[in-house]
Amino acid sequence: MRIALAQLNYHIGNFDGNVRKMIDAVSEAKRQGADIVCFAELAISGYPPRDFLEFSDFITQCEEAVQRLARESHGIAIVVGCPSVNPVVEGKDLYNSAYFLYDGEVKHVQHKTLLPTYDVFDEYRYFEPASEHHVVEFKGKRIALSICEDLWNLGNDNPLYTICPLDQMMDQKPDFMINISASPFNYTQPVERMHVVRENVRRYGLPMFYVNHVGAQTELLFDGGSVVLSPDATVFDEMPYFEEGISVYELDEVMKGGNDRRQPAEKIELIHDALVMGVKDYFGKLGFTKAILGLSGGIDSAVTAVLAARALGPENVLCVLLPSGFSSKHSIDDALALVDNLGTQHHIIPINEPHDVFIELLKEPFEGKPENVAEENIQARIRGLMLMALSNKHGHILLNTSNKSELAVGYGTLYGDLAGGISVIGDVYKTDVFRLAHFINRDNEVIPVNTTIKPPSAELRPDQKDTDSLPEYDILDEILLHYIEEELGPQEIIGFGFNEKLVHRILRLVNINEFKRHQTAPVLRVSPKAFGMGRRMPIVGKYLS
Amino acid sequence: MRIALAQLNYHIGNFDGNVRKMIDAVSEAKRQGADIVCFAELAISGYPPRDFLEFSDFITQCEEAVQRLARESHGIAIVVGCPSVNPVVEGKDLYNSAYFLYDGEVKHVQHKTLLPTYDVFDEYRYFEPASEHHVVEFKGKRIALSICEDLWNLGNDNPLYTICPLDQMMDQKPDFMINISASPFNYTQPVERMHVVRENVRRYGLPMFYVNHVGAQTELLFDGGSVVLSPDATVFDEMPYFEEGISVYELDEVMKGGNDRRQPAEKIELIHDALVMGVKDYFGKLGFTKAILGLSGGIDSAVTAVLAARALGPENVLCVLLPSGFSSKHSIDDALALVDNLGTQHHIIPINEPHDVFIELLKEPFEGKPENVAEENIQARIRGLMLMALSNKHGHILLNTSNKSELAVGYGTLYGDLAGGISVIGDVYKTDVFRLAHFINRDNEVIPVNTTIKPPSAELRPDQKDTDSLPEYDILDEILLHYIEEELGPQEIIGFGFNEKLVHRILRLVNINEFKRHQTAPVLRVSPKAFGMGRRMPIVGKYLS
Repeated sequence: MRIALAQLNYHIGNFDGNVRKMIDAVSEAKRQGADIVCFAELAISGYPPRDFLEFSDFITQCEEAVQRLARESHGIAIVVGCPSVNPVVEGKDLYNSAYFLYDGEVKHVQHKTLLPTYDVFDEYRYFEPASEHHVVEFKGKRIALSICEDLWNLGNDNPLYTICPLDQMMDQKPDFMINISASPFNYTQPVERMHVVRENVRRYGLPMFYVNHVGAQTELLFDGGSVVLSPDATVFDEMPYFEEGISVYELDEVMKGGNDRRQPAEKIELIHDALVMGVKDYFGKLGFTKAILGLSGGIDSAVTAVLAARALGPENVLCVLLPSGFSSKHSIDDALALVDNLGTQHHIIPINEPHDVFIELLKEPFEGKPENVAEENIQARIRGLMLMALSNKHGHILLNTSNKSELAVGYGTLYGDLAGGISVIGDVYKTDVFRLAHFINRDNEVIPVNTTIKPPSAELRPDQKDTDSLPEYDILDEILLHYIEEELGPQEIIGFGFNEKLVHRILRLVNINEFKRHQTAPVLRVSPKAFGMGRRMPIVGKYLS
Repeated sequence: MRIALAQLNYHIGNFDGNVRKMIDAVSEAKRQGADIVCFAELAISGYPPRDFLEFSDFITQCEEAVQRLARESHGIAIVVGCPSVNPVVEGKDLYNSAYFLYDGEVKHVQHKTLLPTYDVFDEYRYFEPASEHHVVEFKGKRIALSICEDLWNLGNDNPLYTICPLDQMMDQKPDFMINISASPFNYTQPVERMHVVRENVRRYGLPMFYVNHVGAQTELLFDGGSVVLSPDATVFDEMPYFEEGISVYELDEVMKGGNDRRQPAEKIELIHDALVMGVKDYFGKLGFTKAILGLSGGIDSAVTAVLAARALGPENVLCVLLPSGFSSKHSIDDALALVDNLGTQHHIIPINEPHDVFIELLKEPFEGKPENVAEENIQARIRGLMLMALSNKHGHILLNTSNKSELAVGYGTLYGDLAGGISVIGDVYKTDVFRLAHFINRDNEVIPVNTTIKPPSAELRPDQKDTDSLPEYDILDEILLHYIEEELGPQEIIGFGFNEKLVHRILRLVNINEFKRHQTAPVLRVSPKAFGMGRRMPIVGKYLS
């Protein structure tokens, strides 16, 4: 028996596009002699469909799309994920289901049991858990079919569920396992996911065919990495990261054991590739081609410009230099050198004149008050206004260039440098932005070396440095990682040897700036805990604030 | 036996403040001879604590706060909601629990069974459902103690759960029921909530003591409306909406039956009172006193200014007129008349000069392109910049004045009129904004009549009217209500007799403008489906778009 895994990039709610893509894959799998072709969890609708699931019109379209796909299942079986209606009044209205299609019909439906409802996941918002588990019989083989999280109660220190759904199928003596997933990327995920899949294979001693999504759905990035494991828990094959593809496997070969070869999964390289894909899909799926960004001469906008140029082509990236009286000469030179290296377009528009007009108009209402953040923010907001005006005129999407360290402590101006349609590096700490720059420059100088070595500055006051108001980034980022990713409290963090006052100050800054993050663009998610849908915090609270 | 309900306004994570407030209420209840005093669901932490629940430091502080409260339970029993740790490794780490405190100790803990995970609720994100249900024995009575949603599987057309937790307690023959809730307001909720509580009383034939939160937690507004029902399902007493209070009830009296009197719950009045409370608490809990807003002479900013003046006092509201060349004389007159009626402060700052400077600076990059939305947005963003500059200088919070109809179809400028810390009327359709204005003016003219009768206009072009690009608001709002609140699809909406092309156009506008709503301020929630945490939509999708 030959089993094909189709690792594809779907588009949420684009039923025609998704089905067309799957029909092409069915043809290709047939051509390669496959008996079964497997598509990912909720492939029909794209993942995550979020509250579109609450519209019966949307569910009807899902059902129609499955029927269209079923008509292609002659001479080949198709496994595909799609929501299905719960026929019982009590309980949630839907199941998250794996359809087994053959001979033009739906032969079997297995619902998902474990419904991830944490971090970026909201599945119990929509779905009722499965209460029954049956293997599928096909051409003399018995298949244990499961969906994503159904594997994830093994190999975790702190399992979130009280049952293992595959346990329920084992007395039906399956021959192999298929798992269809929607397992989003973060830089720890390739290792963790493999661990969990392997633990399942170890427990049941059966081969596993695991297929995942690839591509970006706004902030959620899917790396693919679909995998086949042999019954001895060795890796038989792993599909590439961040690429679509179809692979066909002969079951008898898989039974013999794998070579356990895995592709490299180095953190900074993964982040780089994930972000390029994230930008590319955000634009492609919205039907946009051109990006605009403000280039300051600093490292954040430089790295963002490179990622955008790689995602969209340099000819589609417009870099705008918006110098003020506080911008240093080297900033402008560094920005222009980058534009030159990349081959992107650029404009230079000094902001002194509008700045002076605003200060003059506000003279009376500002009277008697000392200079404060208001004056600095005016500069940042003039830049935001300029970039948005250009974007509105020419049909660009503005890229936000803030990094995670800044977003965390609120070091940025709402409607100013926090503006933009998508935040490219908002889940990358400043210290990792430097690493990304070095990775980008590993073969030749793309980002001017000067940009990668000078001390970070917002250049909103004379001789301003980030370290005037923040600790060094290596210390700041460690504290932030403990608080944001590891969810540790102040005493635990101080226990690592950090200054007590500093820890309290940083945690307070994170919490009181929730209102800013609430209004910033979606952040391409590359870490286990990104700002956005996976981190839901009160705005008006009084905890560590 | 005398039972006290304490309907209080908590602050998320403010353990000292919350406990102090509860200790005062315990004293008052004791003074009034109560045997038991009941506080709301998760009163200790405030509701919703959201992802703070994932921090063990936060949970430790919850536990310590319960212990502090337990020490006050001499001579009086205390019922209070607080998260508790699940001692079993498998499953979620926490329970959502009701503590019964007496004699300085925790006497009983009942966990919540039904965990709302829909709309604004995320409870299965954090909590394991209860598997055991036991009554509390106290002074010869047996009490069936439950938490909020545990009542909500009765009296619904489409119950979301497969069990009724109180059913499990009935063979233990309870004498009465206590339910501690965190049931947020929307204009249908007072009626729906009473219906559900009453259905429970009907099913079990026991009196019910139901206590709710009051006050605002950012976008979530709690109206209170705590209620006591007699065993014959008549209302014995209902506590006021939008006010804190303590009421003590003699069980024997409650047993005899109520007078079934309810306070009025007229939609527009409820919305008015809810929004005033929402603004007041947003400022109060953040430690701010002063609001700023842009006053255009139109109805949205007028209604927002009135609500702000009622919430914060007119002396704390700064209205700023920012006329452009397209602003009509009557707009300025109407805005000034409102300022005069309200007694707020104001500034007038014309924006022509910065507008001309921007247009001049952008002349070259705009060259050869026709006028479009870019020029209009520049005006809106200059206003946003001015308002934020004043707010940054003087410590105001900027109020967003967009209504729900505009937010729905994307009729607003990001970083321009969509700026602000909190959206006051972003859950109120334009037609209801007019009704709110009439309600405000019911006794005397607060909002100038001219503002309430002239055709809505953004005044970003000469003689612009909203109806140039949108249908009449009464039609638009009906279509939006069908789509947003009722979650109907295009065919269903067209079925009501609306123009087919118009319906498709409006639904498409709603969907393609998700990116704007993602970046706007939290919206005070007054409807059953508000933009924000309760409506989670893909940004990059292709459904009805």
